[in-house]
Amino acid sequence: MKVRTIYDFLNEVSPFEYQEEWDNSGLNVGDYNQEVKKIYLSLDIDESVIEKVEDNSLIITHHPLIFRGIKRVVPNSFSTKFLIKLIRKNVSLIAMHTNFDKTHLNNYFATKVLGLSGVAEDFVFYSDVFMSFDELVNLVKDKMNLEKIKVVKTKDFIEKVAITTGAGMSLLSGIKADCFLTGDIKYHEAMDAKARGISLIDIGHYDSEKYFTDVLYKAIDGEIGFDVEIIKINSQNPFSLI
Amino acid sequence: MKVRTIYDFLNEVSPFEYQEEWDNSGLNVGDYNQEVKKIYLSLDIDESVIEKVEDNSLIITHHPLIFRGIKRVVPNSFSTKFLIKLIRKNVSLIAMHTNFDKTHLNNYFATKVLGLSGVAEDFVFYSDVFMSFDELVNLVKDKMNLEKIKVVKTKDFIEKVAITTGAGMSLLSGIKADCFLTGDIKYHEAMDAKARGISLIDIGHYDSEKYFTDVLYKAIDGEIGFDVEIIKINSQNPFSLI
Amino acid sequence: MKVRTIYDFLNEVSPFEYQEEWDNSGLNVGDYNQEVKKIYLSLDIDESVIEKVEDNSLIITHHPLIFRGIKRVVPNSFSTKFLIKLIRKNVSLIAMHTNFDKTHLNNYFATKVLGLSGVAEDFVFYSDVFMSFDELVNLVKDKMNLEKIKVVKTKDFIEKVAITTGAGMSLLSGIKADCFLTGDIKYHEAMDAKARGISLIDIGHYDSEKYFTDVLYKAIDGEIGFDVEIIKINSQNPFSLI
Amino acid sequence: MKVRTIYDFLNEVSPFEYQEEWDNSGLNVGDYNQEVKKIYLSLDIDESVIEKVEDNSLIITHHPLIFRGIKRVVPNSFSTKFLIKLIRKNVSLIAMHTNFDKTHLNNYFATKVLGLSGVAEDFVFYSDVFMSFDELVNLVKDKMNLEKIKVVKTKDFIEKVAITTGAGMSLLSGIKADCFLTGDIKYHEAMDAKARGISLIDIGHYDSEKYFTDVLYKAIDGEIGFDVEIIKINSQNPFSLI
Amino acid sequence: MKVRTIYDFLNEVSPFEYQEEWDNSGLNVGDYNQEVKKIYLSLDIDESVIEKVEDNSLIITHHPLIFRGIKRVVPNSFSTKFLIKLIRKNVSLIAMHTNFDKTHLNNYFATKVLGLSGVAEDFVFYSDVFMSFDELVNLVKDKMNLEKIKVVKTKDFIEKVAITTGAGMSLLSGIKADCFLTGDIKYHEAMDAKARGISLIDIGHYDSEKYFTDVLYKAIDGEIGFDVEIIKINSQNPFSLI
Amino acid sequence: MKVRTIYDFLNEVSPFEYQEEWDNSGLNVGDYNQEVKKIYLSLDIDESVIEKVEDNSLIITHHPLIFRGIKRVVPNSFSTKFLIKLIRKNVSLIAMHTNFDKTHLNNYFATKVLGLSGVAEDFVFYSDVFMSFDELVNLVKDKMNLEKIKVVKTKDFIEKVAITTGAGMSLLSGIKADCFLTGDIKYHEAMDAKARGISLIDIGHYDSEKYFTDVLYKAIDGEIGFDVEIIKINSQNPFSLI
Repeated sequence: MKVRTIYDFLNEVSPFEYQEEWDNSGLNVGDYNQEVKKIYLSLDIDESVIEKVEDNSLIITHHPLIFRGIKRVVPNSFSTKFLIKLIRKNVSLIAMHTNFDKTHLNNYFATKVLGLSGVAEDFVFYSDVFMSFDELVNLVKDKMNLEKIKVVKTKDFIEKVAITTGAGMSLLSGIKADCFLTGDIKYHEAMDAKARGISLIDIGHYDSEKYFTDVLYKAIDGEIGFDVEIIKINSQNPFSLI
Repeated sequence: MKVRTIYDFLNEVSPFEYQEEWDNSGLNVGDYNQEVKKIYLSLDIDESVIEKVEDNSLIITHHPLIFRGIKRVVPNSFSTKFLIKLIRKNVSLIAMHTNFDKTHLNNYFATKVLGLSGVAEDFVFYSDVFMSFDELVNLVKDKMNLEKIKVVKTKDFIEKVAITTGAGMSLLSGIKADCFLTGDIKYHEAMDAKARGISLIDIGHYDSEKYFTDVLYKAIDGEIGFDVEIIKINSQNPFSLI
Repeated sequence: MKVRTIYDFLNEVSPFEYQEEWDNSGLNVGDYNQEVKKIYLSLDIDESVIEKVEDNSLIITHHPLIFRGIKRVVPNSFSTKFLIKLIRKNVSLIAMHTNFDKTHLNNYFATKVLGLSGVAEDFVFYSDVFMSFDELVNLVKDKMNLEKIKVVKTKDFIEKVAITTGAGMSLLSGIKADCFLTGDIKYHEAMDAKARGISLIDIGHYDSEKYFTDVLYKAIDGEIGFDVEIIKINSQNPFSLI
Repeated sequence: MKVRTIYDFLNEVSPFEYQEEWDNSGLNVGDYNQEVKKIYLSLDIDESVIEKVEDNSLIITHHPLIFRGIKRVVPNSFSTKFLIKLIRKNVSLIAMHTNFDKTHLNNYFATKVLGLSGVAEDFVFYSDVFMSFDELVNLVKDKMNLEKIKVVKTKDFIEKVAITTGAGMSLLSGIKADCFLTGDIKYHEAMDAKARGISLIDIGHYDSEKYFTDVLYKAIDGEIGFDVEIIKINSQNPFSLI
Repeated sequence: MKVRTIYDFLNEVSPFEYQEEWDNSGLNVGDYNQEVKKIYLSLDIDESVIEKVEDNSLIITHHPLIFRGIKRVVPNSFSTKFLIKLIRKNVSLIAMHTNFDKTHLNNYFATKVLGLSGVAEDFVFYSDVFMSFDELVNLVKDKMNLEKIKVVKTKDFIEKVAITTGAGMSLLSGIKADCFLTGDIKYHEAMDAKARGISLIDIGHYDSEKYFTDVLYKAIDGEIGFDVEIIKINSQNPFSLI
Repeated sequence: MKVRTIYDFLNEVSPFEYQEEWDNSGLNVGDYNQEVKKIYLSLDIDESVIEKVEDNSLIITHHPLIFRGIKRVVPNSFSTKFLIKLIRKNVSLIAMHTNFDKTHLNNYFATKVLGLSGVAEDFVFYSDVFMSFDELVNLVKDKMNLEKIKVVKTKDFIEKVAITTGAGMSLLSGIKADCFLTGDIKYHEAMDAKARGISLIDIGHYDSEKYFTDVLYKAIDGEIGFDVEIIKINSQNPFSLI
């Protein structure tokens, strides 16, 4: 199957034109005319992923490999190092990032992982929870299977939560909820939320988005055609808490 | 003592012109001609700080209260909420941020808190440590009195560390060390460091900078004059790990 | 009555979304949730206005208090000096500027003050006057009750006048009339108009907009509800001609 | 004498490289190789100037004819209308604007017209006057021969005045004086000065700069060479106060 | 006939609002109110054109005389030199550039000069030619009456050609054809096309657009009215191949 | 020998910091730590060059492979197509572009190829030739071994020529000579030069820079060390004149 055919299929599943202006979803590396027999799914590229992926295949990641324009391809950064490795293995890479957040990933995390119901607005899922902050934290830890979680507590009781997988703190000024669940929360952002009276639960960038492979697998397996094999691998969380 | 006199004294301790272009160190709120009898020192402004500070006094913080230009002073953000409270209490605020990082804070953290020796380049302190990554992590946890710490481990043995208090990951591409100690590390930054083979130890934005009050106290107490009282208070870490 | 309720009412009288991109109409200082019993109307803020306004009230001005983003709240400029005073008195300020020019003020000045009839295009009111330039000047002086007026005379007879209250000279290249009545005319603008053959009558920024309080009073008195008192005060013209 | 020769002479009198970045001093229209026998001096170009100037001559003005880049030469603006007339008369135009303000004009106005002594900083002349505001106003009216003058009075007694001919209000935040004398003062600028406690006396753009022809005449007459005639004409003030 | 009347007629033939944002089509020099009896048509202005054009007439060119804003009208560049000459002869100039490319010129060149059939997309005419590259080159040389032509040959057989008169290489990345015919091809653009496998035939900027006068003549002669004479002159190709 | 060692040697021959701001000279692709035994020299990359270059070697070109930041590495452009091929062959690429123009190439072309003497200013070589334009054209054709050459003739006799290899027409307004020799001359540039009275001889981008390999070879052969072999290959001129 040609990469072009798969790209067109993915474009129906989650249109690439839904991506944000700053995003770089779509074919990052490779060739639309390449014939592939294996499609790998992973949140990201890392060494373990590169090792597992067979030559002449396609990998679909959540995060683009390239964000900013590259002027020197020297293996001294994330983008250039793995760009070189993919090219040598003749592996094409398609990223489904902010388009997929909007159409699939955020909703899946809120409803299937956390088991909440509610409505989505662009990148934010809202749910009326009516429970104590401590209960909410326990629910999240339980559903995400986490031992420890970083929080900013400003209220004892939460009526409504807002949820954005990945790194959502740039959306804070528009959040209309008592508590915001997102990842990659920085100190000044936490101070700002606390001043606004909005509690925070840091669900982790990796931990809240690692479901990408499952969600995409379900959306395309059995639909994309018989002559390609779809394999879920996953990149590893770079962080460990020790 | 006039705020102007104190400002001029602080300018000798750590010249405000050393601040970065994007920074807003200096008098953020208040009046150079105000007479004050009490000077409070704190990493930041929060509710607990506002409560402790007496009317008609001066507070010196590490972080500016205002970063971006304000067009509406409505109490719905960190900057505007505490701006209103300071004005009502007639409290002036001077920030000593990136100038103080360069002249005092980063060096203090590396040498006095961690007990390392080395040299500083702008915002980065370099030290030849020659120890295993695990030993280094234990040393940091011990000296900073932390139970858990977030790390990215890419090497077993560390020859040289780089240290930047606060949030230093934007400096990554210029770091010349095996391991970088800084705070507020985001997921993509961790992936990039891992690809570059640089280990990371997240020393926390608050935890690495809470020493501001001690360092500034030592630099000015007994020097600034007899007619003002200097009081160390400190804002609280918005995060808790539960 | 809550500031929010009054804001929503004003938004129906003259929608804030009609304001120009560079404008800062709307709530400049205060709190949407504040309860107020008195509403003051004034063209602008000045010392006399600050003295007259009671604590815990709302003031509605034509000109925004803040135009450009503020990074230091030190009482050394118009915006910061009165910002501090309003915050200390707990007075909210709503500005109705370019939206109100378009919906009310310019039309009122042309028809009720000058007694002309015609049509409005955005910020410009056009009227076919068919009179000599000298007659027109006398009419304006008489209706505005001015002893002396600054003019640029390029023609003896005026068929059509254009009128923009406040400072309208940036609109010159689009003016389709023999004579333009506006305020704050600078020398190079006068030279440009003269070269284009367009006469000018400087109606004064303050003098042409001081009717703001009357116009707004009429638009809201008796309509906004029984539990607030509306008081017309007015800032003073900073200029005197001696 | 060639225009080039005259240009080089003027460049020694007041170097063109002293001009501000936004300025367009220098040869605006004409030809460095043109031979001229008559040099006219005028503050600006207007119809009366165009009539008086002989063909094939040179005119030196204070204000540039062109400020912003022209894309259509249609006679519907100050710049394009007189550009066409100058080209048809084969008259070259050299502007000596902000360079001449700094080297000659502002100092002349302060010392020779007003009779004050003091020091100049870039565009601002400072003088310790120690007199009442009313005395100062009378002195200015007397020396400038004005019947009426527009003022903003914030103090009864003036220790130090700042003086900038032309339109200087953009310099307000850096003015270190009790009273600022400049022209083209707009309403919001007056409100700002009043809030800062700085009095203003509007000396008029034209009225404060009409001395340009005299000052330049003195600087070049008898020096530039025997084979050109220097003629002072002057453009007219577009404003009249009636 | 007034220039305004002719402008309005041309605007119906090829609406000026179709021009690209960077273009400067329309009245470049002159006066909408000028009365003219003769209209000259030429690709461009040059010395030979200036000599032929009678005073007080109108010239319609393909290329604007002014592209970038002019701040000094000194006869040292193409734009300023001929601007001065046109003003002295009182000749108005209207440019019909990218609007006319889209509505007339490119289509005429492809169908009438080269004798091809196809469809146009904005600035590009596509034609299915199904011939060898060498045959195509001979056809072009024959139809354009050229002895030598500069080419980049990447394929022996051409299915589809794209054609853009003038300088079209900035459109390369969007070209969907085996061979692109355009003018002003630079070396790096040729290297890029070669790498993409797209052959090029350099039809010359002048040689592909010199038909402007014929095309415009046909479009307006007999239509514009009886009281003006339309005269085809043409500027000369600045290049010669020797 | 490591790429780093060769880079440092080249940096002494022609310092990379001399490059223009928009340029991308230096290591474009590869690894400073790569060990290479063969160094290839070529004006540019093309298919023929890729075929000749051995795996695991270094190529030094005049033109950078990458000019603008790349966000998608899909083989549909010059930069991306050859980037992929170089990575697969493990060939590093160093570009010596505007730095080498200034230190070597332009001077070599003027003195060694054309046999002229003179002085260089940045990118321009000036020579007093005192010969007829036709003689000059014949000299150029003879020395460069060209059958036909594209010229713009504005004068019969040339006193001084200016020479810039590659594409130099953006420098036109600063050229102080009767005739400018450079490549890639576009139509509007030719019209501008003609209006300025400056003759042009189009020496071709490729034809004037193909000497890069010879010049660099001479500068480094025998100097760089014994353990690398230096091989001159050259990319082909994409154009042919048929």
